[in-house]
Amino acid sequence: MKVTAEICVIPLGVGLSVSRYIAACQPILEAWHLKPQLHAYGTNVEGEWDDVFAAFKECHQTIHDLGAPRVHTTIKVGSRTDRPQTNDDKIAAVRGSSE
Amino acid sequence: MKVTAEICVIPLGVGLSVSRYIAACQPILEAWHLKPQLHAYGTNVEGEWDDVFAAFKECHQTIHDLGAPRVHTTIKVGSRTDRPQTNDDKIAAVRGSSE
Amino acid sequence: MKVTAEICVIPLGVGLSVSRYIAACQPILEAWHLKPQLHAYGTNVEGEWDDVFAAFKECHQTIHDLGAPRVHTTIKVGSRTDRPQTNDDKIAAVRGSSE
Amino acid sequence: MKVTAEICVIPLGVGLSVSRYIAACQPILEAWHLKPQLHAYGTNVEGEWDDVFAAFKECHQTIHDLGAPRVHTTIKVGSRTDRPQTNDDKIAAVRGSSE
Repeated sequence: MKVTAEICVIPLGVGLSVSRYIAACQPILEAWHLKPQLHAYGTNVEGEWDDVFAAFKECHQTIHDLGAPRVHTTIKVGSRTDRPQTNDDKIAAVRGSSE
Repeated sequence: MKVTAEICVIPLGVGLSVSRYIAACQPILEAWHLKPQLHAYGTNVEGEWDDVFAAFKECHQTIHDLGAPRVHTTIKVGSRTDRPQTNDDKIAAVRGSSE
Repeated sequence: MKVTAEICVIPLGVGLSVSRYIAACQPILEAWHLKPQLHAYGTNVEGEWDDVFAAFKECHQTIHDLGAPRVHTTIKVGSRTDRPQTNDDKIAAVRGSSE
Repeated sequence: MKVTAEICVIPLGVGLSVSRYIAACQPILEAWHLKPQLHAYGTNVEGEWDDVFAAFKECHQTIHDLGAPRVHTTIKVGSRTDRPQTNDDKIAAVRGSSE
């Protein structure tokens, strides 16, 4: 099952600066070939469900490994069976409708 | 890795009534022994990461199988390494702090 | 516009125990007569859009006032124009479909 | 209270293509001067809490006005009192930590 997804990880118990934890996830998402698109409220990815969630587990676990005793992760995931759709397709469709 | 989590599934392309799709997820979450707690904006569960996400994949796939050509799922997942905490523990902690 | 909604507040920079912050939101939601239903991943409410979001602002601000220098809040909000639907209606519809 | 936020709107009961509904929100977010950044799982904005949520209400209502009898909106909103932080600052901090 091909999906697009968004992950947003929040470490707790490590103070206010969370950027280095989020940064640690980017190479994981790259290594799984999920075409990560970082934005200000998460990172969007795409790929097979199993790859996406294996990568998300690795991200979540990595935040613990970096010292965060509590991790809160929010995920959106979508799929459609009528036709393929990438993250770039989704953005292009909105931009196309705006014209 | 023990986690607590929330899943909220939204089928698209099947009209306004989504309750039968959500209902179809409940026995899946039960079958995985995730102690599901249904509420008005999702279902909370707890268990091992791998079990939780195997069940969530099954839920998402089941919505497609029931006829929804597009499915949008949102997930929250949390874990802590300092001490175990169940969904009931979380609710009790808030109620305890209110007194 | 009548809505149902879910709020989940996360204070950052105050350590691991977040229950007293969440507890502080409950009387606010009560005071706005939003029929709060606490669960393990947030609190569900219902009411007019303006009341719901006035209360959510008060909750978010209160977390700061209690000492959290950073607050992350996630919200789900839904409305329908075909017929009224409360949070209890939503749960009953799922339970009814399960039988 | 200055905030950064993400909005993701989902119309129900209007079929599979949701891009024109999302497109209708972009000029609203622009008109409120919220510096919208469209991505594949929502649109990020920044501004005063009251402006952000006035715009979000207008977006949600507009989806109904365009014919969707049911609308599901998810929002993330964050603020910090220790120092100002824009959406661009957040992205730069992650990219800076990756080097």
